[in-house]
Amino acid sequence: MRQRMEQMVQQAQDSICDALSKLDGSPFREDNWQRPGGGGGVSRVLEDGLVFEKAGVNTSVVHGELSQKAIEEMRARQGGELPAADSPSFFATGISLVVHPRNPMAPTLHANYRYFELGEEGSPLSWWYGGGADLTPSYLFEEDAQHFHRVLKEACDAHDPDYYPRFKRQCDDYFRITHRNEARGLGGIFFDDLNDRPREELFGFVTSCTHSVVPSYAPIIDRRMNMPYTDDEKRWQQLRRGRYVEFNLVYDRGTRFGLQTNARIESVLMSLPLTARWEYDHQPPPGSREAELLEMLVTPREWV
Amino acid sequence: MRQRMEQMVQQAQDSICDALSKLDGSPFREDNWQRPGGGGGVSRVLEDGLVFEKAGVNTSVVHGELSQKAIEEMRARQGGELPAADSPSFFATGISLVVHPRNPMAPTLHANYRYFELGEEGSPLSWWYGGGADLTPSYLFEEDAQHFHRVLKEACDAHDPDYYPRFKRQCDDYFRITHRNEARGLGGIFFDDLNDRPREELFGFVTSCTHSVVPSYAPIIDRRMNMPYTDDEKRWQQLRRGRYVEFNLVYDRGTRFGLQTNARIESVLMSLPLTARWEYDHQPPPGSREAELLEMLVTPREWV
Repeated sequence: MRQRMEQMVQQAQDSICDALSKLDGSPFREDNWQRPGGGGGVSRVLEDGLVFEKAGVNTSVVHGELSQKAIEEMRARQGGELPAADSPSFFATGISLVVHPRNPMAPTLHANYRYFELGEEGSPLSWWYGGGADLTPSYLFEEDAQHFHRVLKEACDAHDPDYYPRFKRQCDDYFRITHRNEARGLGGIFFDDLNDRPREELFGFVTSCTHSVVPSYAPIIDRRMNMPYTDDEKRWQQLRRGRYVEFNLVYDRGTRFGLQTNARIESVLMSLPLTARWEYDHQPPPGSREAELLEMLVTPREWV
Repeated sequence: MRQRMEQMVQQAQDSICDALSKLDGSPFREDNWQRPGGGGGVSRVLEDGLVFEKAGVNTSVVHGELSQKAIEEMRARQGGELPAADSPSFFATGISLVVHPRNPMAPTLHANYRYFELGEEGSPLSWWYGGGADLTPSYLFEEDAQHFHRVLKEACDAHDPDYYPRFKRQCDDYFRITHRNEARGLGGIFFDDLNDRPREELFGFVTSCTHSVVPSYAPIIDRRMNMPYTDDEKRWQQLRRGRYVEFNLVYDRGTRFGLQTNARIESVLMSLPLTARWEYDHQPPPGSREAELLEMLVTPREWV
């Protein structure tokens, strides 16, 4: 399974980068990096492109020994189901990507799918999948929200009709900027510690999700990337990018874990936008499209 | 003491805003706000000015009951010296300011001085002062660093010759972006839980510090605000602003405390710059002025 997942995410990195590169007309730059404790990764970035201000697609295959603190946190999260073991070896592989378009009418995409194993290869003490995808617009286009959620729902429904509603709710719960009482965006799906079915079956589910990244997003970019926009609309996008930074640095588990554990910082913070803005007490005029977005962020909606 | 400190910080807010307003040529806008649990504050902001991209000067007088969690954290920090009490009442007043200039040759200033009391007015269970000031340049001008530290040292030396070296070191330790292995800026002074002398004497010390804000900073702005600069230098300033955001959202105690406790968010996040930038793996050319700044941030220097 380790090798199959590794191969799957690497192929996904190729096809996602190809699709984004074609939309933008610019190539990705690539960095190969090693992790001191074991393993490494491949970071691909497209910055300051015609369509994308910043797009980062990262894969990693890391292994080593887990600290006592890390295993205790995992056990707490999983409700004590994790078998006891002193400094067990771990293996993790996954893909993680964030795409910030230039046009304020085009939404930001985040997706991340990973496989985790505790113990020795072939006879793991425990294993699970985690991941999800979510969309963060500056302006709401209902047809975009519906398209994105519909593609994710189809990927879920092929494996379990309960997955989409469950993981959609988990996504709404997770991506909240608590201190603003608003969601980061219009959601998607989010799951972690998923191991309640045979591993083969869940690998199929996560593969479907990963393959849905391009079809869920490329058609949206295609219809938004050349829309006209004003300086004020660009400024609103910059303010929303500021909120994105707030979520990632204050709440995002992956980011905070990366910052605390000396992970490769440039790959961890690849998710931050190229530019962001903070104005004191900015309030969009009632009834404006900006106010409409904020209303949507306060109360998550059903999109399909 | 409550009223005297309150009056001192309010007068300081007036004189600091006057000085900044005169440098910029624009007025501050003012917001008065109430705190649901008791007290309130006055936030003054100058945004998108000629000289300052964003300057915020905030005073507050807050009181109420302290949560069990908050008092336990304080006790842990102060080494168990805090007297035991169930949900004791507290009082806090202080001034807090952050100034982000437009010109990349002009440094960002942060300062904050506050008085805290636990228990009833007149017979507090415990009291202390906290605060400090520090400078964050995008380009290093040694004469600016020396001037800033000299003014702070004079304010300290008038009260105790040990204060400046001690609080300078504490400042270097506190304002570190650990995940980047660099300091936020070139330091200044930082102290907390200060109560090892008579209250009257420490009030005098904190008053001297507060009065040193304008003389420590205005002459620097005066000689940098009209310097010519290139687009590349502005871009470097924006990248350094990104680091400022990283420190404030990931590490700053006051900011994180504010985000966790439903403080007035717009006043808590007033410290964030108007604009910031994150480029993937940006490395300044060896020997450049940008590289010189980074070297200074890795190893704090003595400036006076």
